[in-house]
Amino acid sequence: MAENPVRFGILGCAEIARKVARAISLAPNSTLSAIASRSIDKARKFAAHNGFPSTVHMYGSYDELLDDPSVDAVYVPLPTTLHLKWAVLAAEKKKHVLLEKPTAVHVADLDRILEACDESGVQFMDGTMWMHHPRTGMMKEKLSQLSIFGQLKSIHSTSTYAPPPEFLENDIRVKADLDALGALGDTGWYCIRAILWAVNYQLPKTITALPALELNRDGVILACGSSLLWEDGKLATFHCSFLSNESMDLYLYGTLGSIHLRDFIIPYNEDSASFSFLSDANFTELHLGWNKKPDEICVALPLPQEALMVQEFARLAASIRDCGGCPDPKWPEVSRKTQLVLDAVKKSIELGFKPIEL
Amino acid sequence: MAENPVRFGILGCAEIARKVARAISLAPNSTLSAIASRSIDKARKFAAHNGFPSTVHMYGSYDELLDDPSVDAVYVPLPTTLHLKWAVLAAEKKKHVLLEKPTAVHVADLDRILEACDESGVQFMDGTMWMHHPRTGMMKEKLSQLSIFGQLKSIHSTSTYAPPPEFLENDIRVKADLDALGALGDTGWYCIRAILWAVNYQLPKTITALPALELNRDGVILACGSSLLWEDGKLATFHCSFLSNESMDLYLYGTLGSIHLRDFIIPYNEDSASFSFLSDANFTELHLGWNKKPDEICVALPLPQEALMVQEFARLAASIRDCGGCPDPKWPEVSRKTQLVLDAVKKSIELGFKPIEL
Repeated sequence: MAENPVRFGILGCAEIARKVARAISLAPNSTLSAIASRSIDKARKFAAHNGFPSTVHMYGSYDELLDDPSVDAVYVPLPTTLHLKWAVLAAEKKKHVLLEKPTAVHVADLDRILEACDESGVQFMDGTMWMHHPRTGMMKEKLSQLSIFGQLKSIHSTSTYAPPPEFLENDIRVKADLDALGALGDTGWYCIRAILWAVNYQLPKTITALPALELNRDGVILACGSSLLWEDGKLATFHCSFLSNESMDLYLYGTLGSIHLRDFIIPYNEDSASFSFLSDANFTELHLGWNKKPDEICVALPLPQEALMVQEFARLAASIRDCGGCPDPKWPEVSRKTQLVLDAVKKSIELGFKPIEL
Repeated sequence: MAENPVRFGILGCAEIARKVARAISLAPNSTLSAIASRSIDKARKFAAHNGFPSTVHMYGSYDELLDDPSVDAVYVPLPTTLHLKWAVLAAEKKKHVLLEKPTAVHVADLDRILEACDESGVQFMDGTMWMHHPRTGMMKEKLSQLSIFGQLKSIHSTSTYAPPPEFLENDIRVKADLDALGALGDTGWYCIRAILWAVNYQLPKTITALPALELNRDGVILACGSSLLWEDGKLATFHCSFLSNESMDLYLYGTLGSIHLRDFIIPYNEDSASFSFLSDANFTELHLGWNKKPDEICVALPLPQEALMVQEFARLAASIRDCGGCPDPKWPEVSRKTQLVLDAVKKSIELGFKPIEL
């Protein structure tokens, strides 16, 4: 471990907090310093269940954790409706903020969070883990080569899973007062981010929700989709759902090449991953077959992608804490653009699948 | 070869006719009997170039071929605008009609062709080869198993290729007076058929072209796409194009399973093919990975898919010719539904991407 690791506090005992706590312990420049729950009992049970070392402080309220001077940064996996309050408060207490996605109920809330981070000079980053996978960078390298990929023309992405019936009854992600964005916030977030990532974060001109929508009795989205259109005629479509078997598909089609992968959010395995790349494919004589099959490009991982995320976030936080550095504006910017598009999809749905101009 | 093979005549010397002529020679129950071009010289050159046996009659006009009593069935790979005239005439001359796709410029023309076939009691089939690949049947078997695939929720398909610049200048598929449907007719046809095939040919309720469209200077479609919505909320999207690297993707997402393949129109190889099937996929503990990867299901081919198409068509034609059987209504029905949806996509484009109710 580094000499002065970034000390993390975690607000809340969500399931995803277990994964990120492990990532904090795996990253070489971070350490888990504190956890908080709304009850001290719950915090203690969570610590015991996950084998946290006895050095980890336990708090029965989020406020207490934010007042702990030994905490440099917080990871916030609370329900989306609570992000505004606790992320703003954390920033005001000079904690760097690693915020679970979706970042906020709408971009106005996110803007207040980002302003608070800005005013306190702390780093903001959302918890989109796959962004930090080395595969992501390798794909971007291929995608950016005009000579083998050409111009990007269309994109399709899916993010679906089929949780058990009790999830669809009781999980916070289907509760209007907790995660009002439902599947759009939980899984659609990834599709939107992937699409924006592919186009170097250029915002689309027009966003039109696709005319298929499933809501639960409280009006929370269980499945939806959208098309996104850019000025140059490029089009993306996505489908996100709590009602289909697991899929994490990302397909990028260029004039000369294409990229395909089916596990872009959570790779099949932790230690390596791959994507499929095809360039300059043609029919053989008489169109009896193809001149080539796609190549599978593999990449090994030094650490799981969530540990790489924590490592990058901690690197930025340490640079501010120890060297007087400034927050990296890239991460709040990509969060904001993702949230902007997400808001537009929701608005298009609310208006009966009308096109929304950005 | 069977004792009384079905004797084929081919109208025109299109490139695709070379592939189908080979298929006629490979299928055990068919034989090439005649070819016609608008000039006898062109027909002779085509025969010589493709090594047709000397028994094949050569004609300098399509009419002459249709008057040849030794021809049982015709394969018609003419430009789409000529389908109406020549397919109707062929049917009136009691020839069974294997018609290249897209079947017609619009469904009204196709209906006149189908009426002519009906009145003459001849078999009609369109040239959608992949329908006859054994893989297609195996996929349908998986797709139909509620216990492993569940309910079909969404579909995405692409059919794109990037022909050389001279194609985009001169090919009949970009000429308004020859193949007015452009990429929608040439490549979109396959996506629409695949989508209809997946839903057992139930017509969608609403068809809305996607707001990305590329036309050439004559207004012929070079790239477009559409969404299709069914009464039960199922949604399909497709993208077809002459401007992207080769792709032939078909993705079917169900509540319990999914099917993925990337060469559904023309398999990578002639002798075997595969598709990817995944059922009951879940995250592992802490969502660190997947509990399983997709299975690749392989199938060997006795004959190339186009020869299986010719074999099936010849079987139906022979049953009518030799046993007084009736034409199989399945094939004209699926052609008509495909054309109906294609027409609706075109209408939606013409109306500025407005939803079209079927």
